[in-house]
Amino acid sequence: MAKNNFQKAKGVKDWYRKDSILRNRIKNTLRNVFERYGYNPIETPMIERTDVLGYKGGGEIQKEVFSVIDQGGRKLALRFDQTVPLARFYSTNNDIRLPFKRYVIGEVFRDGPTQPEQGRYRIFTQCDIDILGVKEMTAEAELLSLAKDAFYELGLGDVEVNINNRKLLDGILDYAGIKESAKNPAIVALDKMDKIGIEGVRDELENLSRDVNGADLTKDNINRLMETIRLKGTNDYLFNELSRIIESERGKEGLKEIKQLLDYSKAMDLDFVKLNPSLARGLDYYTGTTIEVYLKNKDIVKSAILAGGRYDNMVGEFKGDGKEVPAVGMSFGLERLAMIIDNYEKDLPQTTTELYLIPLKTTDECLKIARELRSKGLNIDIELRENRKIGKSINYAESQGINYVGIIGQDEIKKGTVMIKDLRKSEQEEVKLEAIIGYVKAKINK
Amino acid sequence: MAKNNFQKAKGVKDWYRKDSILRNRIKNTLRNVFERYGYNPIETPMIERTDVLGYKGGGEIQKEVFSVIDQGGRKLALRFDQTVPLARFYSTNNDIRLPFKRYVIGEVFRDGPTQPEQGRYRIFTQCDIDILGVKEMTAEAELLSLAKDAFYELGLGDVEVNINNRKLLDGILDYAGIKESAKNPAIVALDKMDKIGIEGVRDELENLSRDVNGADLTKDNINRLMETIRLKGTNDYLFNELSRIIESERGKEGLKEIKQLLDYSKAMDLDFVKLNPSLARGLDYYTGTTIEVYLKNKDIVKSAILAGGRYDNMVGEFKGDGKEVPAVGMSFGLERLAMIIDNYEKDLPQTTTELYLIPLKTTDECLKIARELRSKGLNIDIELRENRKIGKSINYAESQGINYVGIIGQDEIKKGTVMIKDLRKSEQEEVKLEAIIGYVKAKINK
Repeated sequence: MAKNNFQKAKGVKDWYRKDSILRNRIKNTLRNVFERYGYNPIETPMIERTDVLGYKGGGEIQKEVFSVIDQGGRKLALRFDQTVPLARFYSTNNDIRLPFKRYVIGEVFRDGPTQPEQGRYRIFTQCDIDILGVKEMTAEAELLSLAKDAFYELGLGDVEVNINNRKLLDGILDYAGIKESAKNPAIVALDKMDKIGIEGVRDELENLSRDVNGADLTKDNINRLMETIRLKGTNDYLFNELSRIIESERGKEGLKEIKQLLDYSKAMDLDFVKLNPSLARGLDYYTGTTIEVYLKNKDIVKSAILAGGRYDNMVGEFKGDGKEVPAVGMSFGLERLAMIIDNYEKDLPQTTTELYLIPLKTTDECLKIARELRSKGLNIDIELRENRKIGKSINYAESQGINYVGIIGQDEIKKGTVMIKDLRKSEQEEVKLEAIIGYVKAKINK
Repeated sequence: MAKNNFQKAKGVKDWYRKDSILRNRIKNTLRNVFERYGYNPIETPMIERTDVLGYKGGGEIQKEVFSVIDQGGRKLALRFDQTVPLARFYSTNNDIRLPFKRYVIGEVFRDGPTQPEQGRYRIFTQCDIDILGVKEMTAEAELLSLAKDAFYELGLGDVEVNINNRKLLDGILDYAGIKESAKNPAIVALDKMDKIGIEGVRDELENLSRDVNGADLTKDNINRLMETIRLKGTNDYLFNELSRIIESERGKEGLKEIKQLLDYSKAMDLDFVKLNPSLARGLDYYTGTTIEVYLKNKDIVKSAILAGGRYDNMVGEFKGDGKEVPAVGMSFGLERLAMIIDNYEKDLPQTTTELYLIPLKTTDECLKIARELRSKGLNIDIELRENRKIGKSINYAESQGINYVGIIGQDEIKKGTVMIKDLRKSEQEEVKLEAIIGYVKAKINK
């Protein structure tokens, strides 16, 4: 028979062993933190209508949408984020009362370039929290507090949170004398800071000034902008410097919001929050606060490991009933978090199984013992094949990353015991049936 | 502005409030039970290549596949089950050692008719466990034990497990004198038993005998088949009756397997296992044991709430290296389980939030208190909007299904207390900050 050569689709990944166990651990941790902060779960379908996904917010992402065709020839597509589906959810479920705080953990699909070394695949998992209906900075303050708890519980305590505000950034661009038409290209250039560094941003701005729209961005504009984004110092220092130069109404509003958010952060002892006037999230739907979280140790990932911000217009425009729906949210990327934790933690578990039972001509009794131990909460696997040599069974348990095997022969059955071997130490001990759970759990938790 | 009229796609559903909380509860319960039985998690991508999904096992389902088109024009599709992806996973990951026990909990996609009253949608969630590499009946025995624990822990203890065996069924068809060409149509007719009843099956068989292939199914065939599937009694009685009539080699092999499985079940005190010689799972890849679990109370759902069986040929043929890979598995349908539990349990929680804090001009302090209580494990939401009337905040908490609110004014801050109101009883009590967690958790668990 010819071997088949079936492949998985391009740019996607199977998760198993330590990867899948770690993914479950991260999802559980985030779910717990989200629920502690009063976010409730929702799930929306992975398939949405094309007009829904095409409406807003996608921008460049539109080029990466996977189309889906149903039997009725309807135009459908796979969701590319969790924010557009949230807007659709809010506008099609009329029983949702504001404020609406929801979390969602689920796959999104983008047919774009993959970067496995950055945890980037065509199917990836976004863990999003959003608050609809709160215009106050208390919402952002709560998100920052949540971020601190989440990273701490994930074992990634060493992070730095950068915040900025679109209105404030607008005020800075006004201060630099940048005209409306050049503001977006300038923001796009600023957004590349992590990747190309501050001198790279200057080059990018200078290139912009030389292209067809060059007249809109003068040398003086660039100098004033660079001087502002080069400012370094404490939050208080930066705030004072910016207060001195920001003149536009919008810019002042941004300053006021940032001040309020910094004050709330101080009240909660969130000392990791850092005002960064150059922070410019790419997505064009942001209207106020922007947030990015980085690892302090940049060796593994230079770019943000959590990002979000305020988007007060999008949800209301989507629903289209003329009411503004203030909104703010953040998105954790599961694959990237898993990649980082995998880098940080040695000895991630390869299996969820705690004990591997090997019956020696005692299959009936062993099935019964396994059933009892399982009902008391021990994760048990068992040699299900007949007439295997004991060495092969032990070798199998080892290959699966299981650390303890329990051997049950006629002798053990008579005595009501199990011979438990620690495979890492080549030690063994005869343990009474009723003591097994305590024995194994104690060993594991050592 | 004109109201937009965005809709969700046809045949799919948003899950939120009690539904989404219940779905998480079921997934957690199943995940725990699966891991206790030595199954490890895997995740395979929702998108597979069309040749993979088209290869095997689909049958009628092939008509219900959603096609996906990527930017490179590759032919892709959304998975319609978890079994074909398992075969693909096994054949593309060469580091998998047998036996391989995996669980998977994830969405599958079928563009077929929907039946919301039966928990049937175009996107649904299969919670599958499978064992590759074990030909012994120990594998089935373990699955039955797992099913018992799973239903008990889901709060659905009152179930009946029917087992049969394809080889045994073949032996019965041989006994009835049914020719090879008529065996599959006869099995398809038998598989409709839940829906059309035993007389319906007879009608169906008689219709078959009148159609173009009528000659292959005689009156005598039908009578003998009906006489066998009408047999009622204990497992021992049925086994003895069948032993008396089954003559073919294949049939006898089936009898032997069933006997072994019944013996293992007895050893584990699985008294809910019932031999049902008429059980015929529709899918044509089954080769041995078939399993269906029903609620004893048929008012909610008549058809199976869990199904599975042995398919020893499919995985090996898929890989195509000439090696047989014995396999057996079961699939829990999340939507149907949720529907049943929703029917059984009154007062499913509407929210995961345990306490709603309302600051009265104490936002800074209240944010800090919320942060502390959350870090100790209480699920807290908080009034984030400014200058709300207290009655409106309480009304909001009620509308969300939250049972306890904590009011924090200047007075409470001075005394280090929170005024906690039980919204269902209109009672209130002033509680010291350090006692809040214990107080609320005790109330909730009462």
